[in-house]
Amino acid sequence: MTDTDADHPTLGFDDVVHQRTRLGILSVLAEADRADFGYLKIVLRLTDGNLGRHLEVLAEHGMITLVKGYEGRRPRTWATISPHGRKALQAELAHMRALLRHLDPD
Amino acid sequence: MTDTDADHPTLGFDDVVHQRTRLGILSVLAEADRADFGYLKIVLRLTDGNLGRHLEVLAEHGMITLVKGYEGRRPRTWATISPHGRKALQAELAHMRALLRHLDPD
Repeated sequence: MTDTDADHPTLGFDDVVHQRTRLGILSVLAEADRADFGYLKIVLRLTDGNLGRHLEVLAEHGMITLVKGYEGRRPRTWATISPHGRKALQAELAHMRALLRHLDPD
Repeated sequence: MTDTDADHPTLGFDDVVHQRTRLGILSVLAEADRADFGYLKIVLRLTDGNLGRHLEVLAEHGMITLVKGYEGRRPRTWATISPHGRKALQAELAHMRALLRHLDPD
């Protein structure tokens, strides 16, 4: 897809990042140094299955890194955003700004 | 879902409107008085099937109205945005602005 001025602003959105839950995960991770599964679940109000599925998609696309470990005896999974994920989130936000400018230029 | 200050901004997004293609359709219709199937297809670079499916979802949710008619002998389908659709698009844009402010307060 070429990205000329004539393109409608919504054409730039990438579904991997744009999807509401994944956008939420990347947004939280962009602010926090890292976040664990339980924290993401509460902040984004997700079920285990739903969060797990979306984390997997983001990891498959190299946008986050998942690290499994223990805190005391309790198994934990931490997620961090990768440089690629941070760039993809910035691109999504830039497309949002472009759409807002397009629809509401004031 | 309550909508308190503590809610993460991405929780407000409604998948019906947030989904990239439907957001594109509503955006085009918010600007144009009405648009026909062929125009939407070109501007949003969609196949017949994909456009048809998303128009149906928006119509089912009362966000657009579809009118079938003829231009000369050629059958045409026109779409217009409903007041409910316009309100839903404005809510989506407000949530985008909230997310942008949240992540990038400057």
